[in-house]
Amino acid sequence: MITPLRFLQLCVLSMVLPTTTATTASASMLSGGEDGLHAEILRDEAVARLNQLGKVSDADGYLERTFMSPASVRAASLIRAWMEEAGLTTWVDYMGNVHGRVEGLNASAEALLIGSHLDTVVDAGIFDGSLGIISAISALKVLKSSGTLTNLIRPVEVIAFSDEEGVRFQSTFLGSAAVAGILPVSALQISDKSGVNVQDALRENSIAITEENLFRLKYDPQSVWGYIEVHIEQGPVLEWVGFPLGVVKGIAGQTRLKITVRGTQGHAGTVPMSLRQDPMAASAELIILLESLCKNPKDFLSYDGHCNDSTVESLSNTLVCTVGEISTWPSASNVIPGQVTFTVDLRAMDDMGREAALYELSNRMYEICERRSVSCIIERKHDANAVISDSELTSELKFAANAALKRITGEIQEEVPVLMSGAGHDAMAMSHLTKVGMLFVRCRGGVSHSPAEHVLDDDVWAAGLAILAFLEMHV
Amino acid sequence: MITPLRFLQLCVLSMVLPTTTATTASASMLSGGEDGLHAEILRDEAVARLNQLGKVSDADGYLERTFMSPASVRAASLIRAWMEEAGLTTWVDYMGNVHGRVEGLNASAEALLIGSHLDTVVDAGIFDGSLGIISAISALKVLKSSGTLTNLIRPVEVIAFSDEEGVRFQSTFLGSAAVAGILPVSALQISDKSGVNVQDALRENSIAITEENLFRLKYDPQSVWGYIEVHIEQGPVLEWVGFPLGVVKGIAGQTRLKITVRGTQGHAGTVPMSLRQDPMAASAELIILLESLCKNPKDFLSYDGHCNDSTVESLSNTLVCTVGEISTWPSASNVIPGQVTFTVDLRAMDDMGREAALYELSNRMYEICERRSVSCIIERKHDANAVISDSELTSELKFAANAALKRITGEIQEEVPVLMSGAGHDAMAMSHLTKVGMLFVRCRGGVSHSPAEHVLDDDVWAAGLAILAFLEMHV
Repeated sequence: MITPLRFLQLCVLSMVLPTTTATTASASMLSGGEDGLHAEILRDEAVARLNQLGKVSDADGYLERTFMSPASVRAASLIRAWMEEAGLTTWVDYMGNVHGRVEGLNASAEALLIGSHLDTVVDAGIFDGSLGIISAISALKVLKSSGTLTNLIRPVEVIAFSDEEGVRFQSTFLGSAAVAGILPVSALQISDKSGVNVQDALRENSIAITEENLFRLKYDPQSVWGYIEVHIEQGPVLEWVGFPLGVVKGIAGQTRLKITVRGTQGHAGTVPMSLRQDPMAASAELIILLESLCKNPKDFLSYDGHCNDSTVESLSNTLVCTVGEISTWPSASNVIPGQVTFTVDLRAMDDMGREAALYELSNRMYEICERRSVSCIIERKHDANAVISDSELTSELKFAANAALKRITGEIQEEVPVLMSGAGHDAMAMSHLTKVGMLFVRCRGGVSHSPAEHVLDDDVWAAGLAILAFLEMHV
Repeated sequence: MITPLRFLQLCVLSMVLPTTTATTASASMLSGGEDGLHAEILRDEAVARLNQLGKVSDADGYLERTFMSPASVRAASLIRAWMEEAGLTTWVDYMGNVHGRVEGLNASAEALLIGSHLDTVVDAGIFDGSLGIISAISALKVLKSSGTLTNLIRPVEVIAFSDEEGVRFQSTFLGSAAVAGILPVSALQISDKSGVNVQDALRENSIAITEENLFRLKYDPQSVWGYIEVHIEQGPVLEWVGFPLGVVKGIAGQTRLKITVRGTQGHAGTVPMSLRQDPMAASAELIILLESLCKNPKDFLSYDGHCNDSTVESLSNTLVCTVGEISTWPSASNVIPGQVTFTVDLRAMDDMGREAALYELSNRMYEICERRSVSCIIERKHDANAVISDSELTSELKFAANAALKRITGEIQEEVPVLMSGAGHDAMAMSHLTKVGMLFVRCRGGVSHSPAEHVLDDDVWAAGLAILAFLEMHV
């Protein structure tokens, strides 16, 4: 078993950023209701709204809301109503994103965007995406109730993105990529399983998307100050370290490989062990290599031109590798496979480190395959570079999160941890438009994409209070 | 690469039996045509017949003959005609097996049975099964042409079994198990994919199988002297050691396991390596363990009550282990699997050794799973004990094979190797009726169950000549 202590050594101590110096606000700037905690809006109502939104589903008995489905349209209406109640001016754009905006003192100032997604996976939890939308609306509702909404020094706009999970069209970020201006026109022609394409899906809902309208969706970078997003962690780190909130230092870069190992197919009973070129046994050795390298990159990577101290250090803390799919051919219990295929998902915060790990991995994989007289084909199927959170936004979010936790517990806490995000988020697309920052919220057991996904009521509260504290820096 | 020398050390030297002493015939007893080689019958005609039978298929463009299919019925007619031409009295029994028998000098003496199967897999080669039938008929035809058929001291009966591969009903040995008396009545009710059962399939071909008739199919053990079978090796050993023929010391016992490893499902990007309970990495370690144990059982098995010297020695030469099927759940490249399932096929000549290997394997698998905090379920799905060839039959077959090779090459050769059979054969079922012996014939690259299956014309000849030599011991 991994002990909490060992985990702390491995993961967290190194995740805490150096002492923050660039904070532009102080606890004294926080304002609010009678106790300044607004539990009725930020916790009780927010949790009720999460549950209510979690019932808006296209399926009976479980949660499913995909791009422009009837349930998504109903969810959009509900979110829009909550935005209006919070004093925001609302609209739905050509990609089905729901916007709620308050101009504040200076409508021409650069706007702060706060977003997350309203779509879900199949058999989803109720927090993934929704928590980011609802906590932002709730925090603005508090500002409205305290009369400070109009005092914001810059416009603040909440965006509920129409598609992040990509379940219907197998293409993520339809919503945020359109706003960031990186969605290709060709995306409109992607079809779902029933042959309906993105354009059709929008038009069925009276949204007249055209190529021209798609270009218009892109925000002018000059009009935007930054983008922040609250999201459940979808991993176990915050629970292990005992913090409701964490600040995201960046979203990991990712490479997806397809490995094909070819050997000599044969009868399971007639080929002596010493005469086999068995791609299954070879694949097992490759998978063990992958795990070892990703657990202990220091043991594998040399400090040469490819890899300096900080790269290896970064890899040691953030490198994660997964074999999620594997299959044999011809897949019969009494046949030595002729071929084995498996996927490798490799992520790290440091792009150069990721490349160094891939280089070392490939070389050692080829060595193993050569020694075993099997052939090994390594294909790169997907690459995405890491997104680094903006340091100013991250500092402000960290300050806001610390302040929120201090107010709830009444104690001076250790600083909230700083994590990487291994999962992609709308912030990844939005980073092409503006600086981004993210706040993670603890979820039970790290479980997500499941009805068992759960966030404590008090952690929902902490998230809302942190966004409120962040907004109050812009009052 | 494995060198032939290393292979010899590992596999063959230990496979050669101690010097044979119990031979009841000598080369001088061989008789035949002018040169005693009968190439025109045992090679040229036999090869032509293999090709002819290989064209009798239910499929266009590839070979497929399943139990009682139209092609199987045509094949049976052809074989029956060849049997009659060789001077045999023929009939088809209630399970569709084709019999050809000559009574010799004493119709009430115990009969020698020689058999193999006439059915094939899908997209089969032309030698698997057919070679054993055709070489037996060809050898008897030589005896007929030399006028010695009636001088056989015991009845000789060739049986072309109707089902060994089990493609249609997923149940092997329908033909030979019925003759051996071990086919349960329930087998008649097994249905194929289209809902036709074994009984229907026979009745559609005017064979009135009933429960009573099935019992009648069983041969009286008192009426049978022994059973021999010629079969292609379906493995690479004979090719590696450079022998056209080998004698089979037995058919390996087999255990089939289903291994289920359960861990903690998670997002590929969000769970640090140190916090994972990954059943895929655990399975890879289990597969490497399996391979190591089966390659070097000496390193794993202790010489205690379970395992003595000869057991470990036997395992070192015959143990083979295969993982042919593997799957993950939920099988997505970006999800750490929650569960991995794979099959293990483990075979050995020594049943006690196989149990010892399974015991050691299970213990070490549980240790690995415990260390990795995953659960591990090991299910035994199938068990079959080894069949040991009769030593007298094996000695006679070895003498016959040596004699045949000597006559073809004109040289004194090393003794033919003695192998195990890792694959099941009709001899496995027939061992429940009588003593059995088998002769293996070299096939190119060890390839079988494929149109690439190939046996050299001269190796077909050697097989026929060996059977002829064997029969001549009974003249």
